Amino acid sequence: MTVLILTAEQDVTADMVVARLHERGVPMVRLDPADVPGKAVLSADYAHGDFDGYLSVNGHVLSMGGLRSVWVRRPGEPAAHAAEPSAWLTAETRQALFGMLYSASTRWMNHPRRAEQARHKPWQLRVAHNSKFAVPPTVITTAPRVAEQFVREHGEVVVKSASGPPPGEPPAALPTTLVGPGTDFSGVAAGPALLQRYIPKRADIRLTGIGTRMFAARKAAEPGQVDGRFGETGNGWEPTPVPHRIARSVHDYLAFTGLAYAAFDFAEDEDGIWWFLECNQGGQFGFIELETGQPIADEVAVWLAQRSPGLRIPEGH
Amino acid sequence: MTVLILTAEQDVTADMVVARLHERGVPMVRLDPADVPGKAVLSADYAHGDFDGYLSVNGHVLSMGGLRSVWVRRPGEPAAHAAEPSAWLTAETRQALFGMLYSASTRWMNHPRRAEQARHKPWQLRVAHNSKFAVPPTVITTAPRVAEQFVREHGEVVVKSASGPPPGEPPAALPTTLVGPGTDFSGVAAGPALLQRYIPKRADIRLTGIGTRMFAARKAAEPGQVDGRFGETGNGWEPTPVPHRIARSVHDYLAFTGLAYAAFDFAEDEDGIWWFLECNQGGQFGFIELETGQPIADEVAVWLAQRSPGLRIPEGH
Repeated sequence: MTVLILTAEQDVTADMVVARLHERGVPMVRLDPADVPGKAVLSADYAHGDFDGYLSVNGHVLSMGGLRSVWVRRPGEPAAHAAEPSAWLTAETRQALFGMLYSASTRWMNHPRRAEQARHKPWQLRVAHNSKFAVPPTVITTAPRVAEQFVREHGEVVVKSASGPPPGEPPAALPTTLVGPGTDFSGVAAGPALLQRYIPKRADIRLTGIGTRMFAARKAAEPGQVDGRFGETGNGWEPTPVPHRIARSVHDYLAFTGLAYAAFDFAEDEDGIWWFLECNQGGQFGFIELETGQPIADEVAVWLAQRSPGLRIPEGH
Repeated sequence: MTVLILTAEQDVTADMVVARLHERGVPMVRLDPADVPGKAVLSADYAHGDFDGYLSVNGHVLSMGGLRSVWVRRPGEPAAHAAEPSAWLTAETRQALFGMLYSASTRWMNHPRRAEQARHKPWQLRVAHNSKFAVPPTVITTAPRVAEQFVREHGEVVVKSASGPPPGEPPAALPTTLVGPGTDFSGVAAGPALLQRYIPKRADIRLTGIGTRMFAARKAAEPGQVDGRFGETGNGWEPTPVPHRIARSVHDYLAFTGLAYAAFDFAEDEDGIWWFLECNQGGQFGFIELETGQPIADEVAVWLAQRSPGLRIPEGH
């Protein structure tokens, strides 16, 4: 039974998990979908009411019947490295590769269908509410008057992007930014804005959830620091225990979204409350592991190495 | 309680359902996501453990709490009609619009997450097998030798696209085509091929499933006709009863995929067996309704008009 890792060639986070799988003696195939067709050959066979398929990568043959789990780390676009790439070849190759993988009875970290929905930040807030996290009041709007009203009501408010920074090279930095009353919100009519009540925080929390295991790390904030990703504080990430209530909420969130892996960001306020900011289904963990020594890569490897409990049909409804 | 229809301005299939909803007196808002932001204004508010949001379209205000159902017909790209369109604006607007809609407790025809997975033809074949449809032996491969072997084994074989014809204007025609032994399959290494045992058919069958309702239509084929979409036969679509076994399989297929609407294509062979060819979650029904008089648009309207049975949380796992 073999683990399949879908990721680009350069991926140190994947390297960490690959090393743990090697130590544990778990067979593993690493594939960048960009290398299909070409370096990798695939065939899927639907006959006599049954299904079988295989992937051949660098001389390793991985049968779909022997697929233990799939880790969708940071895969390239299917057929992106083809001799004659095209949008159609990418579409056809995506159908062939993911259609075959979806047909297998295997475990996913994370299933692309679940990952895609889980990327929607407004939905994250809703699921976080339902999972009983503390969630800062938030509005997403294209109505300038609603934005003005929100700022009047909450006083200190941050604005952030819902989808991440604008694409481009070099990547643009787009820190979460404080806005106050008197801000001109007329531009909101031309593009939705996400406004959130500012949580004055004494620390950033990063919680990594893997199946039922959780690792939390804490980094003390400087007074007035808004976005923990920007500005050097000299403070490092340190392991911190997961409060029982938070653990229950994380469990509910993962169960509801169907995610096997997720990285949660919280702001810890002066009262010690962890405020849910976002949940990144593909969030990095390498920097946390390096600073805290928490064995996250090993836990990912353990999850991937589990044998599936006799699944008979591929993932559906 | 209002029905939301997401589709482009020009969409006669949507027009048919809109007319039925009007007749039934069901409130309805029609929106092209391409018109957000701009013609339509949206706001979603996450506060105090609760959620509310609204869409304002042409003076009609649709509250998320009053959302009866969403029909994802043929929506444009979010923000495509913006004064200054960009990939980032589209990403931000998709987050805002779909993130808000996902947060609502409503019924979907079809939920984009389920639709996206259901588009994968290899997975369709697998689910069709599991649903006990008759499925022609099929292979999807980038290995020329596998393609040659498949043709040797099955004799008459058709080749088709997995993702549809290549994109472009004017659209390219790409009929399903017969291939035989002696075909040069070396090109398969550069792009996956989908090969399927040819089913000599006496008719094409189109079955439209809407919730638990089904309509089947039949069009007699000319001897030797391979692709029912091409070549005039002079034969029209006629209503035909749905065999009990088929009805059960359709029910299982829809339950497993979580689709509320799907159009199934079958080939009826000389023995009367309906062979599953594909299932299009966004398939047209206008031409069938016009030729057969089957009240498909009305059935779609009935499904959309149902009140949700007290859903409390948005759709997840």
